[in-house]
Amino acid sequence: MKRIGIALAITFTSLHLSAEIVEEVVEYKHGETVLEGFRAYDDEIEGKRPSILIIHQWTGLTDYEKMRARMLAQAGYNVFAADVYGKGIRPQPPASGEEAGKYKADRELYRARMLAGLEMLKNDGRTDPSKVAAIGYCFGGTGVLELARAGTEIAGVVSFHGGLGAVPGMEAQQGKIPAKILCLHGALDPYVPADEVAAFQAEMSAAKADWQLNIYGGAVHAFTQKMAGDDISKGAAYNAEADARSWDAMLLFFAEIFLES
Amino acid sequence: MKRIGIALAITFTSLHLSAEIVEEVVEYKHGETVLEGFRAYDDEIEGKRPSILIIHQWTGLTDYEKMRARMLAQAGYNVFAADVYGKGIRPQPPASGEEAGKYKADRELYRARMLAGLEMLKNDGRTDPSKVAAIGYCFGGTGVLELARAGTEIAGVVSFHGGLGAVPGMEAQQGKIPAKILCLHGALDPYVPADEVAAFQAEMSAAKADWQLNIYGGAVHAFTQKMAGDDISKGAAYNAEADARSWDAMLLFFAEIFLES
Repeated sequence: MKRIGIALAITFTSLHLSAEIVEEVVEYKHGETVLEGFRAYDDEIEGKRPSILIIHQWTGLTDYEKMRARMLAQAGYNVFAADVYGKGIRPQPPASGEEAGKYKADRELYRARMLAGLEMLKNDGRTDPSKVAAIGYCFGGTGVLELARAGTEIAGVVSFHGGLGAVPGMEAQQGKIPAKILCLHGALDPYVPADEVAAFQAEMSAAKADWQLNIYGGAVHAFTQKMAGDDISKGAAYNAEADARSWDAMLLFFAEIFLES
Repeated sequence: MKRIGIALAITFTSLHLSAEIVEEVVEYKHGETVLEGFRAYDDEIEGKRPSILIIHQWTGLTDYEKMRARMLAQAGYNVFAADVYGKGIRPQPPASGEEAGKYKADRELYRARMLAGLEMLKNDGRTDPSKVAAIGYCFGGTGVLELARAGTEIAGVVSFHGGLGAVPGMEAQQGKIPAKILCLHGALDPYVPADEVAAFQAEMSAAKADWQLNIYGGAVHAFTQKMAGDDISKGAAYNAEADARSWDAMLLFFAEIFLES
């Protein structure tokens, strides 16, 4: 009950006090690759605070991720939305599938790109390093699970309708997964089929990771994204109930993982 | 975010105001069968309020359900813990398996016993009939899913590590399931195996029910029950994280389903 209390305290506090949300487009680099991320935070809040890394869906860092960053900043979190692809690389389908595929096929590169974004977050002066989580959407959901598999020292990861499959040989290893894991999944998601869900459970159980999987009946892929439309026969569509429930589940998870121990 | 707000408002309010929890053992009948239930509520609260029916695990209505009833009463809910078995029938294993089996094998009787408890709740003068949910543990989890399958006009049901299987011919029917469904399930529960979980998802998806399934990695059966001990090799054991997470998930669900529309 205490964690619901804290989740609410965070949300109510930020909704009722004056908030001054600062947003910035941020250019940074990973090796020679120029990246363009986005930060958002409430300038009325003093000191270091819980901080969230956002990993984008397959079209790159877009208005969608900026919207989520603002929502989190309103709720009092310090946010950095990373750029995995590179400045100016914001492909629409079908090119988005190819671009995402490059990183899904080279998970060391994918992990490294996300870690570059994590460094930006951790070094921004507002981040409490003991209170960091990464969230991701679709391709980005797969990404944050890769951060967990890599043993990244963060408190938690949240996958929103991400692909759950690991690359053989790169699965989660027992005792090496400090991040707590929350996966939010549409029951009818054809892009994350039942065998992949089962394999994920087996992988994470074998690794003795701290994991949870919430399945939303009636929801398909991209259920948090209004731009996915409402035609579930496409296998990707917005679902307002699953969107609201998954967001609240994430806030509840944050309240738990960021609790002072 | 609003529902987390309400969930917290409920819990914080009840924790910080004076509460006067009234508890009563309640004798009632179903046909000729004498039953002994338990009610709990906060006498400081005025008027009709959200109300919860509790369906017990396989040993009958015991101190465990009374404990949960008190917790819910502290949180501001009006509670009735039903008796499915009959006054004085509180079997320990292995007799508890036989007793539970009688009702699992005769689900019309099982439903009728639970509905008798629901009537007690609805007629107690404190229940807002538009804000009723049923929760159940193990055998009781199966029970509340049966209430949903029966088309019971309540806002929601929550199964804590309940058996998920329907009796052939008694599955949920499309358009006839008004209750929203939340199932809280241990990933390693040998009593509710993967094929049963898959069949439940297929059943509820075909019925177009509003359902959610939260799976807790590392948890087995009876994960909310300290009396189950801590030996997971038995297939039933307490899991503190899953207990806390499932309780909070229930409160969040209540905040959603009881929201003024």
